Amino acid sequence: MSWLDPKQNPVLSLAMDLMSRESVTPQDAGCQPLMADRLAAIGFNIEMLEFADTLNMWARHGSGKPLFCFAGHTDVVPTGPLAQWHTPPFTPTIIGDNLFGRGAADMKGSLAAMIVATERFLGQYPEPAFNIAYLITSDEEGPFINGTIRVVDTLEARNEKINWCLVGEPSSGQKLADVIKNGRRGSLTGHLTVTGIQGHVAYPHLADNPVHKAAPALAELASEQWDNGNAFFPATSFQIANINAGTGVSNIVPGELKVMFNFRYSTEVTAEQLQQRVYAMLDKYGLNYQLDWILNGLPFLTDSGNLVEAVVAAVEQVQGFSPRLETTGGTSDGRFIAPTGAQVVELGPCNATIHKVNECVSIHDLTILADIYQALLQQLQQKLTA
Amino acid sequence: MSWLDPKQNPVLSLAMDLMSRESVTPQDAGCQPLMADRLAAIGFNIEMLEFADTLNMWARHGSGKPLFCFAGHTDVVPTGPLAQWHTPPFTPTIIGDNLFGRGAADMKGSLAAMIVATERFLGQYPEPAFNIAYLITSDEEGPFINGTIRVVDTLEARNEKINWCLVGEPSSGQKLADVIKNGRRGSLTGHLTVTGIQGHVAYPHLADNPVHKAAPALAELASEQWDNGNAFFPATSFQIANINAGTGVSNIVPGELKVMFNFRYSTEVTAEQLQQRVYAMLDKYGLNYQLDWILNGLPFLTDSGNLVEAVVAAVEQVQGFSPRLETTGGTSDGRFIAPTGAQVVELGPCNATIHKVNECVSIHDLTILADIYQALLQQLQQKLTA
Repeated sequence: MSWLDPKQNPVLSLAMDLMSRESVTPQDAGCQPLMADRLAAIGFNIEMLEFADTLNMWARHGSGKPLFCFAGHTDVVPTGPLAQWHTPPFTPTIIGDNLFGRGAADMKGSLAAMIVATERFLGQYPEPAFNIAYLITSDEEGPFINGTIRVVDTLEARNEKINWCLVGEPSSGQKLADVIKNGRRGSLTGHLTVTGIQGHVAYPHLADNPVHKAAPALAELASEQWDNGNAFFPATSFQIANINAGTGVSNIVPGELKVMFNFRYSTEVTAEQLQQRVYAMLDKYGLNYQLDWILNGLPFLTDSGNLVEAVVAAVEQVQGFSPRLETTGGTSDGRFIAPTGAQVVELGPCNATIHKVNECVSIHDLTILADIYQALLQQLQQKLTA
Repeated sequence: MSWLDPKQNPVLSLAMDLMSRESVTPQDAGCQPLMADRLAAIGFNIEMLEFADTLNMWARHGSGKPLFCFAGHTDVVPTGPLAQWHTPPFTPTIIGDNLFGRGAADMKGSLAAMIVATERFLGQYPEPAFNIAYLITSDEEGPFINGTIRVVDTLEARNEKINWCLVGEPSSGQKLADVIKNGRRGSLTGHLTVTGIQGHVAYPHLADNPVHKAAPALAELASEQWDNGNAFFPATSFQIANINAGTGVSNIVPGELKVMFNFRYSTEVTAEQLQQRVYAMLDKYGLNYQLDWILNGLPFLTDSGNLVEAVVAAVEQVQGFSPRLETTGGTSDGRFIAPTGAQVVELGPCNATIHKVNECVSIHDLTILADIYQALLQQLQQKLTA
């Protein structure tokens, strides 16, 4: 079939071109310049924003408003064990209906679909009723310090506002576009150190075991119901990710216990409220502790509005079914864009193989994804000109 | 003073000779042959018992009964950081009243005192009313697999019984012979692995956090009163020595929790009872776990009898005060000898510097220790001939 032939399928062709560049975080490896060339050719103004080791691109078509933005990243996670790959991870390979290679689903396939959809839409509407932008980074899978957050800061500083943002993260589960993420939970990490007094187990009266002191507090933290969630969010969850104490030998009472825990929290609580409740519990048990926090991301929700309506309509138009709106899953760069007031949704291919060896994407899905992105742009055009 | 001169103080001289031999576990470095020569010269029959990397000596004077045994070890713990030693650890050095060097207090000083006391006693009583033996190993500070336990097995196999045993471990606290150990608690170590289901913290319903499951069980284990001890033993104590779970990152729910704990237990409970109570608690919380046990040593107690009476009388005679009988502290090779039915006590120098850099012993104490050991032999002689 013609859509399996890169020469006849521009989405597949561009995806393969991007996937052949070894852009492990924070490397861009020429992906953004390739995208920039395509966008410049259809009238985009290109700004390359380099922060430390990270390359970012802000590309914009038009200087008015409202502004729709495609957001995404060119970096990919490491390959993992090469021996477990059936094909070279940076040599995109077609097997049957699937395109194999690192970044196929997360998210070079989405980037290719965005570009082709934009080219086609601007071919239909050379002067659309809204502006289009691209916010692309090479630091989404890494420490996310010099990526999207720095670009957003730059835009905020010059009062450049994104109204609608589609992040191309692989949101789909069983089939393409069955799930759209219209928000994400917040993520709050605590680094807890409980201090006791080290000693010999034979002289317990001279020691003070921090594991013993902390155990009932940890039991209470683990069993606490933090909230009940709401219509858009599951209940806030607390997980102890790491716990460590001891020197390895059996006759030393440890002097220090380290616990790392993480909240994924709904819009029913704030990070500050969670912190205060944790402090209260630890204090109740009389622990001598230090607690440092990292707020990985605030929760965000785009529960209604033009963007959600347009995306749902686009999926219904192309796929013939309505997508589910969900807020589950990990964090994404949407957490940095939503606080500016933008409506944010995430829509991309199926996520079954992301971050794994033999990552792949259905070529059919990739082709249809460009159709959905194009339909989304059309839906927005219709809303603004109706 | 003459007792500070090795040429005039045979205890000091022999202690220095032993300490100049670099006998880090399991090396004997010629210590036992040196002792054997001295003992053979006063009529002892010498058996060198080599098991794997460990040299042991069984030396016996007389072939009748009852049998009194001096027990001890020639091996020493490693020096630790050499830069922190003020004197070379294997060059015994007199500074003021103290003899510095590795093994000074634990326990080459005791070995020297035993030999000199035995020589003097046999000078007084060439045909004493009891036999005297030495059970010396070079594997007390190490894995204690090929040391005292193997010698005891050898003696048991030929039905050779020790009636009274003095272990020369440094039992003293503030001053020489203020404390005699007349027993030791048991030591039982548990290696617990609690199994859950690893997962991503963003999908807690797909994971099963073993730290959360185990926390209330650990809290209960830590707060349990295992017994109330008795006149000779403090209450049994439970300590979590190590706890570990997690991969180091904040977004993975760990699949496994490892906990290493240790009981120091009195004669009011048995290892089997403690094990059953731990199993019952873990089962109550529905944990999926594996638990492996190491019985490091059974508790033992010599609460009365000729040996305790003779040691107390010897201390009173030489020091002018009564020693306290205690069962606190770590384990010793007494745990291997006591189960044969022997009465066992431990008496040696002050233990403030053992296992540390700049280990030392008071030369005055060392000299007096030989007097106490000699008085002990005299007390036993009087009991048997009264």
